[in-house]
Amino acid sequence: MVSGSYLTSTPTPSTSLLKDELDIVIPTIRNLDFLEMWRPFFQSYHLIIVQDGDPSKTIRVPDGFDYELYNRNDINRILGPKAACISFKDSACRCFGYMISKKKYIFTIDDDCFVAKDPSGKEINALEQHIKNLLSPSTPFFFNTLYDPYREGADFVRGYPFSLREGVQTAVSHGLWLNIPDYDAPTQLVKPLERNKRYVDAVLTVPRGTLFPMCGMNLAFNRELIGPAMYFGLMGDGQPIGRYDDMWAGWCMKVICDHLGLGVKTGLPYIWHSKASNPFVNLKKEYRGIYWQEELIPFFQTAVLPKECTTVRTCYLELSKLVKAKLGKVDDYFNKLADAMVTWIGAWDELNPSENPGSTAAVKPNGAAKGK
Amino acid sequence: MVSGSYLTSTPTPSTSLLKDELDIVIPTIRNLDFLEMWRPFFQSYHLIIVQDGDPSKTIRVPDGFDYELYNRNDINRILGPKAACISFKDSACRCFGYMISKKKYIFTIDDDCFVAKDPSGKEINALEQHIKNLLSPSTPFFFNTLYDPYREGADFVRGYPFSLREGVQTAVSHGLWLNIPDYDAPTQLVKPLERNKRYVDAVLTVPRGTLFPMCGMNLAFNRELIGPAMYFGLMGDGQPIGRYDDMWAGWCMKVICDHLGLGVKTGLPYIWHSKASNPFVNLKKEYRGIYWQEELIPFFQTAVLPKECTTVRTCYLELSKLVKAKLGKVDDYFNKLADAMVTWIGAWDELNPSENPGSTAAVKPNGAAKGK
Repeated sequence: MVSGSYLTSTPTPSTSLLKDELDIVIPTIRNLDFLEMWRPFFQSYHLIIVQDGDPSKTIRVPDGFDYELYNRNDINRILGPKAACISFKDSACRCFGYMISKKKYIFTIDDDCFVAKDPSGKEINALEQHIKNLLSPSTPFFFNTLYDPYREGADFVRGYPFSLREGVQTAVSHGLWLNIPDYDAPTQLVKPLERNKRYVDAVLTVPRGTLFPMCGMNLAFNRELIGPAMYFGLMGDGQPIGRYDDMWAGWCMKVICDHLGLGVKTGLPYIWHSKASNPFVNLKKEYRGIYWQEELIPFFQTAVLPKECTTVRTCYLELSKLVKAKLGKVDDYFNKLADAMVTWIGAWDELNPSENPGSTAAVKPNGAAKGK
Repeated sequence: MVSGSYLTSTPTPSTSLLKDELDIVIPTIRNLDFLEMWRPFFQSYHLIIVQDGDPSKTIRVPDGFDYELYNRNDINRILGPKAACISFKDSACRCFGYMISKKKYIFTIDDDCFVAKDPSGKEINALEQHIKNLLSPSTPFFFNTLYDPYREGADFVRGYPFSLREGVQTAVSHGLWLNIPDYDAPTQLVKPLERNKRYVDAVLTVPRGTLFPMCGMNLAFNRELIGPAMYFGLMGDGQPIGRYDDMWAGWCMKVICDHLGLGVKTGLPYIWHSKASNPFVNLKKEYRGIYWQEELIPFFQTAVLPKECTTVRTCYLELSKLVKAKLGKVDDYFNKLADAMVTWIGAWDELNPSENPGSTAAVKPNGAAKGK
């Protein structure tokens, strides 16, 4: 593990909300020059960098950032055989960062995402907006037509039941992208020049019982509330699909949030997504997912968790059983994925023994110390 | 019934979409000077004005509009004893206009709603946006994070099942309000100065299984698809509540749309809502509704219609039975309302015999001729 330190002295911006309670997780295969643009917003926070691909390659992190970096060798050493649940050569590897973090909140961002501007031309502090989203309640049980009722200048409209106005705790804040939209390969191929220019000034709760496509590019969550459900699955190297890591996590997470009465928000903040990935390469990664998802969506729409499941990890283990029972027949891949879901929870428990006092593995693994 | 005619010759704007297939329904107690501001957008369309309150009062309609106007005497004459289902001294009377119309689409607007401007300063053609919403499909089965995928510059994002991309027919388009937000009396009292200044450039489908507070101020719908469900209930004169007319219609309509696989959109267009109603008067109208709705929402959230109900009117009659069976015990008012729901369908069938060939009442009532 490589650690960075404050080489330059920079003032802490007044907007560094929760700076001791949030880690920024970045999966990457390249030098992190993109952080320069984020410096005013990220420099007060701790970064967890998950290096994908060749572990012998050195990733350059701009000076002045406080970070820890894990490559594949680190992951293998820390998790041992359980490292098999962490994908390789796919941004799904980012979920290792969620597991190794000890903070209450996670913000994860891709290294081709830059600071966007709002319609007035002001640079958007995406992290600050995510934190606002996470710290204010969600309203999954009834739709508010003026969107997030907790935002300044908004409220619940006439006809909104008063008993529901306290809302519920927000577990996830899903942000969006200006410029290159998050399209699948077929849509990329059909609309190569389409750019998202529409700034929609809204945050809203995804209603209970409604699934959505969660993108991992610009995402924040309350790790204490929902962390163990944020497993990004088996993707990339040695696996039959890619680019469904965040989708899988989103569907599992949403079913569990609905079961536990937790909220999921989408909308602001925007980031500027700079670069469209190669649609031909994407098609190869996605094509099985494109037809599998036709069976996955009905599965998740009808998945029912037993009411005895009152924690995220018990929900998640139950969901892994349902995956094996109902999706195993779609493809043997889902049997492996169901097993990996169990392995993931085992690894989570090892790294976070205090969250699960009944766990037998309470040894702090070697090499997980934090650097600064 | 009073009829208006084109006294002045004005060119038909190129944007008069569906001008022979849509009626604009306006409930009012005052001269319709507000139409002056809407002239460029409404003048090509036919208006149905439902005059509330004293029928001896003459309502002035600006020259050049094509309209028919019904006062209470007209409604009583046309519907006979069934007129009891149409509210008096409450904007709920507007639903008489839905019933008397013979067009495929309805747009209804309050007379204190003016033309709003978008952030670029351009006047918003609310009707045109409603028509766009109604003519493009809805996506109730899965949430698209870039909002309406059928808008220019948008599409379905990665992870959206391809089998759901055709969408379903849109039955309702619910528009919003800049300036005075549609708050209930308690919120008006607590936040008397709050104004809605946030222009959210989005249209979205209210997901299946999710209820929302439908406001009648700025609303359009496909009358052929959902007309008989748009009953605004018993409100105002002689009734224990007011200001729940549109809410009631919205909840009934949404349950039926969910059952029949029809779509409901909310968001754009905005109108400029000029005048806050008196919160003290509103509180008196609303207070029973405020506690009743705590029982209404669970009722509508769990209402299940039999799969044999495949038309709006059979769904609606079934819903009236559920209302009587389950809400009658909340207050006797709901027994009366359930009866009025049945009367409403009877009156709808009388005025629209071709929609229900089995109906015994196929006589075109006297006085319902259209003027121009």
